[in-house]
Amino acid sequence: MPKPLGQVKVLDLTRVLAGPYCTMLLKELGAEIIKVEVPMIGDDARHFGPFKNNKSLYFMSINHGKESISINLKTEQGKRILRELVQQVDVLVENFRPGTMEKLGLGYELLKELNPRLIYAASSGFGHTGPDSQKPAYDMLVQAMGGIISITGWPDSPPTRVGMSIGDITASLFTAIGICSALYQREHTGQGQKIDVGMLDCQVAILENALVRYQVDGVPPKPLGNRHPTITPFQAFKAKDDYIVIPVGNDNLWKIFCQAIGREDLIEHEQFLTNKLRTEHLETLIPLLEAEIIKKTVAEWSDIFERVGLPHSPINTIDKVMTNRQILARNMIVEIEDKDVGAIKIAGNPIKMTSIEEETTRKPAPEIGEHTDKILKTFLGYSDEQIAELRQEGVI
Amino acid sequence: MPKPLGQVKVLDLTRVLAGPYCTMLLKELGAEIIKVEVPMIGDDARHFGPFKNNKSLYFMSINHGKESISINLKTEQGKRILRELVQQVDVLVENFRPGTMEKLGLGYELLKELNPRLIYAASSGFGHTGPDSQKPAYDMLVQAMGGIISITGWPDSPPTRVGMSIGDITASLFTAIGICSALYQREHTGQGQKIDVGMLDCQVAILENALVRYQVDGVPPKPLGNRHPTITPFQAFKAKDDYIVIPVGNDNLWKIFCQAIGREDLIEHEQFLTNKLRTEHLETLIPLLEAEIIKKTVAEWSDIFERVGLPHSPINTIDKVMTNRQILARNMIVEIEDKDVGAIKIAGNPIKMTSIEEETTRKPAPEIGEHTDKILKTFLGYSDEQIAELRQEGVI
Repeated sequence: MPKPLGQVKVLDLTRVLAGPYCTMLLKELGAEIIKVEVPMIGDDARHFGPFKNNKSLYFMSINHGKESISINLKTEQGKRILRELVQQVDVLVENFRPGTMEKLGLGYELLKELNPRLIYAASSGFGHTGPDSQKPAYDMLVQAMGGIISITGWPDSPPTRVGMSIGDITASLFTAIGICSALYQREHTGQGQKIDVGMLDCQVAILENALVRYQVDGVPPKPLGNRHPTITPFQAFKAKDDYIVIPVGNDNLWKIFCQAIGREDLIEHEQFLTNKLRTEHLETLIPLLEAEIIKKTVAEWSDIFERVGLPHSPINTIDKVMTNRQILARNMIVEIEDKDVGAIKIAGNPIKMTSIEEETTRKPAPEIGEHTDKILKTFLGYSDEQIAELRQEGVI
Repeated sequence: MPKPLGQVKVLDLTRVLAGPYCTMLLKELGAEIIKVEVPMIGDDARHFGPFKNNKSLYFMSINHGKESISINLKTEQGKRILRELVQQVDVLVENFRPGTMEKLGLGYELLKELNPRLIYAASSGFGHTGPDSQKPAYDMLVQAMGGIISITGWPDSPPTRVGMSIGDITASLFTAIGICSALYQREHTGQGQKIDVGMLDCQVAILENALVRYQVDGVPPKPLGNRHPTITPFQAFKAKDDYIVIPVGNDNLWKIFCQAIGREDLIEHEQFLTNKLRTEHLETLIPLLEAEIIKKTVAEWSDIFERVGLPHSPINTIDKVMTNRQILARNMIVEIEDKDVGAIKIAGNPIKMTSIEEETTRKPAPEIGEHTDKILKTFLGYSDEQIAELRQEGVI
């Protein structure tokens, strides 16, 4: 079986993270990604660290397997090439500030005339409508604006950012859902459509029960460090050498836990009989538990908890993540072989499907314009002479 | 135009968060969701707080608009009903521990014989393969195991959990992408397939550049509080009354920022000329900036930064999020009118598409088995007598 998007062609005008991560997902699902880059300069992320041998691993890790065509969209000929390409593809993805495509004369309203089947997906900071749609966005900004920072961290610490770009990544995921659903719908309607995803909107969409918690008591939820808001004990404890996460999710596990740490006396203690009681008395309970957990190392506790069937986890640093047996068994660490950098490990595809055969390697990311000639020839039938001329004129 | 998944029927066997959030997304895209619940007990999340008038708002906020049929899957007749329903739907989603469906005699291999077009999506903690696939998972556990906790928080603080269930939510999003792409593919192949998404895998997939950062210097990335790893200044600063996020993303903004805070002298300072230099000397630079920002309130700085076009944001708490003008303009806060609870506000759909007309309300979540009779009649043609008998026998 071919991959699910095996016949889908995507014209990718995105830069940096939210857009390229989205088209990377589409690539993993089998789509052909034609990345449009500014000649000589390319995607901004080519200039973002970390670097190895002067190449951006940041760029490489989210643009593998894409093909790059360089086009100067400020020239008339460049715009013409783009319009021609639009007629040959199924999907266009862009993450410019709203209105940029219109200023270039390449807005959705014009492009859909050229290709009514086009699915046009725009990923932006604040979406294409509303009073603040024109403002610049950064991941950190939408994390602050959308509320996630207000519920992450410690009550007495400065504001704490989620340690990865959750603003960009979730926008990528929602955009990919929109694109795939529009592809499905097009099979019935024959029509494309526009998809408009704002990073800030996505931050609100993932707040989960924080919105309703606020409506019950009128108090904005606060950060809780690492403990669960309503289940106790369910947090990281300091062991002799490092922290260990112990989620005691129900009363049965509570008994197993008390036995495992040698505090059977707590099981029938009237203040700790139910989860509700344990949460009410957590300020009494947690110090009692801390006093026990500190006595042994994470490895020692892991052995004990493993034997009695109690869930637990160390706080894995990235090196441990990359060697975790389950993560490796799931093929979640794959390798790129880049001609300049050598072998680099990146994350694999978490969507395991019958139609996607697992592969342990990925193709490298393209150089700027590496596939310009190939794309102009195969998609648009340009001749070598025409291409040479366009190159001389600085169009490609 | 109908919604993109307007003709899609989903049999939803999921509980708690990762599964129900996924089928909520499918519902927003137009799918019909038939939620299968244990008679009398229902989805575990019905018993999770926050509560209002004895009803779980947690449950309500992610199950709105679904229809509920109660079936006791431990009875032979219950299994038969499920097998009959499988033949009438496009998609089945479950988030049991791997092997549970097989033990019930309802594994994918059997179900696909009944309906070769069935798209069977399993969302689980560790996926359906690998040495740890049978272990129980919680959001907190996969956050710890997958590395995100190791890069979130402060260098000197205890481990910090991301303040929402990023393990569940990202698994939902990846599963929804898999389902939509499989629906698209089925239009060409006529065949369904199995999708297998593990929460832990998804945590690895969203680590972004942390994996490659580690490979450059061999040092596992550490939490950085709220600052950007490679751009400076790009963090939250303490103003007179609260914190404000100031992302100075390029050299031009650096000049504007220095002028706005009355420190033009820093613009040409040899230690701070470029972003690279500012990041190298951040321990010198940040205290100088902190000394200025503390002098005015967040509102005062916001006015100043607004005038000069410098990006900035307060740390919005949930109450501020729910009244933010852009978030409201984007219809990202919608309302449910529940007969017992009254009006409750929840997050809207961040996937804005031509084919989805914005609606400011959502239907309430179902009671356990509220639609049992309707579904048995319309999907399977059961008579009132048959239904009464099944109810008496405790099957539904």
